[in-house]
Amino acid sequence: MDAASGERGAGKGAAALWGLDKREMTGHIIVVKANVREQLLDAGLQVLHERGFNATSVQDITEAAGVPKGSFYNHFESKEDLGAEVVLRYLESSNKTQAVLRDPKLSPYARLRKYFEGLVQVAEKKEFCGGCLLGNFGAELSEQSEKIRARVSKEFSTWSAMIAKVIAEAQAEGQISKDVSASTLAAFVLNGWEGALVRARVDKSKFPLEQFVKVTFAKTLAP
Amino acid sequence: MDAASGERGAGKGAAALWGLDKREMTGHIIVVKANVREQLLDAGLQVLHERGFNATSVQDITEAAGVPKGSFYNHFESKEDLGAEVVLRYLESSNKTQAVLRDPKLSPYARLRKYFEGLVQVAEKKEFCGGCLLGNFGAELSEQSEKIRARVSKEFSTWSAMIAKVIAEAQAEGQISKDVSASTLAAFVLNGWEGALVRARVDKSKFPLEQFVKVTFAKTLAP
Repeated sequence: MDAASGERGAGKGAAALWGLDKREMTGHIIVVKANVREQLLDAGLQVLHERGFNATSVQDITEAAGVPKGSFYNHFESKEDLGAEVVLRYLESSNKTQAVLRDPKLSPYARLRKYFEGLVQVAEKKEFCGGCLLGNFGAELSEQSEKIRARVSKEFSTWSAMIAKVIAEAQAEGQISKDVSASTLAAFVLNGWEGALVRARVDKSKFPLEQFVKVTFAKTLAP
Repeated sequence: MDAASGERGAGKGAAALWGLDKREMTGHIIVVKANVREQLLDAGLQVLHERGFNATSVQDITEAAGVPKGSFYNHFESKEDLGAEVVLRYLESSNKTQAVLRDPKLSPYARLRKYFEGLVQVAEKKEFCGGCLLGNFGAELSEQSEKIRARVSKEFSTWSAMIAKVIAEAQAEGQISKDVSASTLAAFVLNGWEGALVRARVDKSKFPLEQFVKVTFAKTLAP
């Protein structure tokens, strides 16, 4: 993914914990429980993405969310429970970057190219830190948490299908060769992106991402 | 990498801690310090590969090595220190799988194909668990440990060069197109392998690895 969890705010502080009970119009100050849950999810997404699952404590998450530590267990059974929720929010959180895949003004091929170039820009902006939450959780937790593994698998599958759809359109228009199915090409490209992103973090360099874009469009998605 | 840390033994137990002082021929039983260090490295490689860095404690490593916990700090300053050593052993530990890349009886193209098919077999044997230590540490630790990040970068670079050498030979023989440099193709393929391996762990399936081999040889490394 595009390491873009930063699109959602986190750590808004304890001030956001309290709100007026507007429905009842009584003007009484009450604890807005749903909001605490949202704050924990927003902060959890950001902190787990930045530091990884096992290096993050529940306290790290409540501190980032600006809520009391005890409140965590009113909303989540465990860190794993929140981690699994966060996975489902990740693709959604980078919706802005994905919009280009549906841009009707561009050819399917141009949409794919602009999409991956956009992902490179996001990674560069983050100085190649953090990588993709799905890839990170996949590497760190596949054997540790069955719940998170299954969610990551589902999200990868959704993301792959999103890319396969555009590849199929480009194949229909003759912009990409049909000798390999759109779904296989999409999985190959997405997995290759994930690997390139890890290498960019390891090398602290844009180069692996540039190599990825170059070879993907010269070879994998060639006419 | 090929998830093949199992090639080195670990957890040989405390019995291996003691040996006869053969050089001096005195017959006295002494602590064989070098051996404890080796045992810690062997066990560390296996446990860190299986569980990840942050989910593993120093005690997990000493237990797997069958040595007293206190002995750890006689040999390593920290878990990070051992982790960085382990990275340097990882490529070496899968030397058996790499041998095919140097097999003079096969064409360079056939060597590459057999190499990646061999990696798929190793991953399948491990039921797609553990993945690659380099990729795992890259995803988990790139921003946490500068020392480990730099080592992983160096090892990826060595591994990439190993593959690039064979790709260059295949290009010279006309088996792979020369339109993209051997080093760029090697990096792309290696990073793609890493991504496919994470996806295989996430999906608990051989399919992403089969897709990787198929597209790599149909597209990336095509004539």
